[in-house]
Formats: sequence, C-alpha cells, structure tokens
Amino acid sequence: MTGQKKKTTIVLFSGDYDKAMAAYIIANGAAAYDHEVTIFHTFWGLNALRKDESMKPKKGFLEKMFAKMMPRGADKMGLSNMNFAGMGPKMIKHVIKKHNAMTLPQLIEMAQEQDIRLAACTMTMDLLGLQQEELLDNIEYAGVAAYLADAEDGNVNLFI
Amino acid sequence: MTGQKKKTTIVLFSGDYDKAMAAYIIANGAAAYDHEVTIFHTFWGLNALRKDESMKPKKGFLEKMFAKMMPRGADKMGLSNMNFAGMGPKMIKHVIKKHNAMTLPQLIEMAQEQDIRLAACTMTMDLLGLQQEELLDNIEYAGVAAYLADAEDGNVNLFI
Amino acid sequence: MTGQKKKTTIVLFSGDYDKAMAAYIIANGAAAYDHEVTIFHTFWGLNALRKDESMKPKKGFLEKMFAKMMPRGADKMGLSNMNFAGMGPKMIKHVIKKHNAMTLPQLIEMAQEQDIRLAACTMTMDLLGLQQEELLDNIEYAGVAAYLADAEDGNVNLFI
Repeated sequence: MTGQKKKTTIVLFSGDYDKAMAAYIIANGAAAYDHEVTIFHTFWGLNALRKDESMKPKKGFLEKMFAKMMPRGADKMGLSNMNFAGMGPKMIKHVIKKHNAMTLPQLIEMAQEQDIRLAACTMTMDLLGLQQEELLDNIEYAGVAAYLADAEDGNVNLFI
Repeated sequence: MTGQKKKTTIVLFSGDYDKAMAAYIIANGAAAYDHEVTIFHTFWGLNALRKDESMKPKKGFLEKMFAKMMPRGADKMGLSNMNFAGMGPKMIKHVIKKHNAMTLPQLIEMAQEQDIRLAACTMTMDLLGLQQEELLDNIEYAGVAAYLADAEDGNVNLFI
Repeated sequence: MTGQKKKTTIVLFSGDYDKAMAAYIIANGAAAYDHEVTIFHTFWGLNALRKDESMKPKKGFLEKMFAKMMPRGADKMGLSNMNFAGMGPKMIKHVIKKHNAMTLPQLIEMAQEQDIRLAACTMTMDLLGLQQEELLDNIEYAGVAAYLADAEDGNVNLFI
C-alpha cells in the first residue's frame, strides 16, 4: 500500500442543500488531506450539477415535468430539515455569509479546483430526463460499475 | 487476503422507493462484480420486505397502527423527494418502464437470484410489530452483532 | 494490523429521532465488540447533544431563530418518517417502553459509559449558532480534519 493515495468516494443521492454541503465539505477536506476523491451524483443529487440557465433540450412530457419540478442547480436546492417553504435555505445562506463560510456553489467550484472527480450517474440521468448539456462542464459520466471499482478500494465510502 | 471475496454491506434504513432502488442497484452491481453482498433492513427499510397480501397476524393496538400506516411491500413505497401525495412514485414507475429499467420489486427479485443476503433486523421488527409471516420468504433474521461481523471486513459499507 | 482495535466512525447529520437511534445502536454495538467508536455530530445531528434545559446564551437574531426552531435535546427530536405532527415519536417511545428497548437519551448515556467519543462539529455549531454551554458535558469539539483522520483508518464508516 506504500505510495498509494488514500481514497474517499461519496455517493450524493440527496438533493438537499444542507446534505450536499456536508458531502462537499467532507470531499474538499479529504482532497486537502491528499485523498483521491470522487463524488458520484445520482437521483436528486444530480441537481447539484445542473446549470443555472434555463435550457430547453427536447424532452418527453414526464422528463419535462421532472425538469420543471427539480431545482436548477446547487443554489436552488431546499433543506432536508426546517425548509419552511424555502425560508430555511435563506437563513442558512445568511449565516453562511455572516460566518464567512462557503456556499454550495463555492464548495463545488473549490472541488473542481482541487481535481475532485465529479461524476453523474447516467442511468438516473436517463430516468429523470437530464441531458449532458444541462449539467456543468468538466464532469464525468459513469455507472454503477465505475462507482464500485472506485469504492471497493476506498478508505472512506459514504452515501449521502 | 488473496482468494477472498470483496464484501459490500448495506444498511437499508429508509422506506423510500427511490432510496431502496439505489440500495438494490448498488447491491446487484456489487454481486455482479463478485462481491459478497448483504442488505440489512432496519426500521422503515423493512417495508421493502413486506409481502403484498394483507395478512392479519394477532397484534397489539400500536403494532396494528404501524402495520396499517406503513407501506405493504416495495411497490407501495413513497419517494424521498417530490412525493406529491403519491404522484411522484407513479412518475418514477412510468419512466422506469419507458427506459426499460427495473422496478424495485424486480430489483429485489434479482438480488435473491444473485444470492444477495437479505436480512431483517429483529429488534426493529419487534418495535414496529412486524412478524416473520408478513415478510418475504428466504430472508435472514439478524441483529446488530451479525451486521457488525459483516461490516467490519467490508470493502463498501453504506447506510441508506 | 495485529493488536490494533477495529474502528467505527459515524457522521450523524440527521436530526431525526429514529435515525439517531440507529446511529447509537450501531455505535453501542460496535463498542461492545471492542471497536474504537466515534460519532461526529454535524448539522441537525447536533440537536442530539443539546441539553434539555432552556439556556439563554447571547445570540444574534438568526441564531436565536435556529435555537428556537430546533429540538432541545434527543428526547424532543421528530421522526424521519410518519412523524404526523409529533404523534409518531410518541408511538415509537411507547413501543420502545413496551419492548423494554432503550430510548435515545438512554442510548446516548450508554455510549458515554462505553467511552464512545462524541464529537460536535464546530463549523456547523457556528452556522447554527450553538454554543458549548448548550451541549452535553464531556463531548469533544472537532472539525472535518479530525473526522477524516479517524475515518480513513475506519473499518465501518457511515453517514447517517
């Protein structure tokens, strides 16, 4: 094992702002401690990778509905707890600003600067009707096989 | 370690259709890659193992209430997100069909065919008043000790 | 590796009574099997460590609101599922009593007796405006670096 990097692999399933923050804080911390880090975004976690702009790729009816109902990017996500019709996220963003902490979009940017691999699960992209042009640039597209290949040698594996 | 199989051990705590899907997709994938795989169903995750038929085992009042309020089997479970009074699961099942993906009951069947060990947590069965006759056949009954014995040698440990 | 203790490291992110129960049951089990166990409490999971008494530390407006809205200690937390405006937790506590199982406050006490390390994430304490005097005595204060140092050698790592 000498000379080999430690590995952190996170499945981000949740579309909640606070859970995604936790995932990216751990990921950025692990990268800072020289881990090889991958975040696999699946199901609602894919929303963290959506671009902010309104794109109109050709979609079927159900896919259009999902696209409409799901938050468009990290900044639009709700909280897992005390969401209060959207007031919760505003409170969190206020306290983040006040304490000079990083917002979710800033944490994602930092992850990209630290060469954390951001992967989008192609199977759930299909299910939810998300297309590559709707997601951030410079991410990877992967399936469960790629996830397992990573995770089976991982030191820290989390499902968030 | 040579010759030893890799191990994936998942605690399925959640009773959400989408989270259970994620658990079973990872489990089936791991089994396909020759991992030894166990899913420990605890709390609301036990609902994935409930039989579809209405059974009437003798129960106390609280246990009857839990039994009534909890979904009867994998096909009846709600979504963790955008459940919309039950509309969300219908949408997910539509897109699953459309994309020729597998439904949760099909994923559970596949897991059984791949010899994934499905275990039910006896302590939480007690708490929620679930009896063995209400759950699928060919599953195991286990406690936290059995879980830990599995997980402590696991390559991939997840709590879902 | 001979002579070294196995290690279980849990991130408790959730503020739900049932999820915290699951975390503490696994943790107490692992300690009984001689693992070195740490629970890192972050975000809503910090509420499990709040003292029951009403304290009035000097706080800003947002911090006061969070403090008001968040449950004051383990006994006040809601369920992740079937919370029914607080009826769910009562039902769970009834069945816990009936089956001679342990409540969450009892599980936390047992964890402290078993020398499980209970750590509070200082970064999210800041965000939510929680102060040390509001949390249980004899806990540790830590950040993501301490978490990773623990988790990277862990046998069982879970995010709950």
